[in-house]
Amino acid sequence: MTNYVYIATSLDGYIATSDGGLNWLLEVPNPEQSDYGFAEFIEGIDAIVMGRNTFETVVSFGVWPYERPVFVLSEHLKEIPGNLAGKAELTSGEVLTLVQELRRRGYENLYVDGGLTIQSFLAVDMIDELIITRLPVVLGAGIPLFGELAEMLQFEHVGTEVYNNALVKSHYVRANR
Amino acid sequence: MTNYVYIATSLDGYIATSDGGLNWLLEVPNPEQSDYGFAEFIEGIDAIVMGRNTFETVVSFGVWPYERPVFVLSEHLKEIPGNLAGKAELTSGEVLTLVQELRRRGYENLYVDGGLTIQSFLAVDMIDELIITRLPVVLGAGIPLFGELAEMLQFEHVGTEVYNNALVKSHYVRANR
Repeated sequence: MTNYVYIATSLDGYIATSDGGLNWLLEVPNPEQSDYGFAEFIEGIDAIVMGRNTFETVVSFGVWPYERPVFVLSEHLKEIPGNLAGKAELTSGEVLTLVQELRRRGYENLYVDGGLTIQSFLAVDMIDELIITRLPVVLGAGIPLFGELAEMLQFEHVGTEVYNNALVKSHYVRANR
Repeated sequence: MTNYVYIATSLDGYIATSDGGLNWLLEVPNPEQSDYGFAEFIEGIDAIVMGRNTFETVVSFGVWPYERPVFVLSEHLKEIPGNLAGKAELTSGEVLTLVQELRRRGYENLYVDGGLTIQSFLAVDMIDELIITRLPVVLGAGIPLFGELAEMLQFEHVGTEVYNNALVKSHYVRANR
């Protein structure tokens, strides 16, 4: 039963430009089309939890990329588009309640995605593992990965991999809880 | 002629707690008392530029740690304490003017330290190399390393080292200027 963050950020901690732009993520040359370990990561995931912003960004791609059930955590979204029935499900409320409900339904390992959603999980200390890939760019503005917390959270470093001599992916697990 | 940032941050990009606290930096076990490469770095430095906050933090240690001339960039500080005469010098004004003046005086390689000072150098694209050491903690609040920029700045990754299976130090140089 593990809740994971797996995300790319700029050196200054942004996951997207201020308007949600992700093009800067694609500017790092990737000649061998590495997936930077994503396929191996997603293999161990049972369901994905994301917020409305991330969901709408993914929908805007026009191709639904996930082979796992997606739960969209939003107080404002009215409904999931009909063509995504059975693939994405709308949910709302407290993080703890959501996690309990998903566990009850058999989803053990959750991939938590999107800035506000990750922040709401961290705020209640419900992230067990952080896998953060740093791109070699300082964006200077954007949508931040982290938000304010009442208490600091200690992690242990598990490992770091460098891809294409450009991306630095570090894996952390929650420690001293 | 290179301007360097060499600094430690939390995973969420803070260089100190909100009250300037640095104790969290010492919480990572360091059995062999590694300096994490600092001695080798400072070897190549001719002078250090820092802001008033960093200067006052260092002064509060009671022991002056630098063997290089320190320039304190501040509009508010009135004078440098007399016991630091010849070690630290007060300066103010534009970053570009300061750098030109220091170069004229023979200081080629500058170590730029402190959040606001680093941010003012980045704002005018005057940082050439970034050496950032990430500690495995999410502070949740504090003094940020990075600030807002009008333009994104691309860097190239030079190398990453992991110390004590805990600290991840990545070295970047400015690219595509």
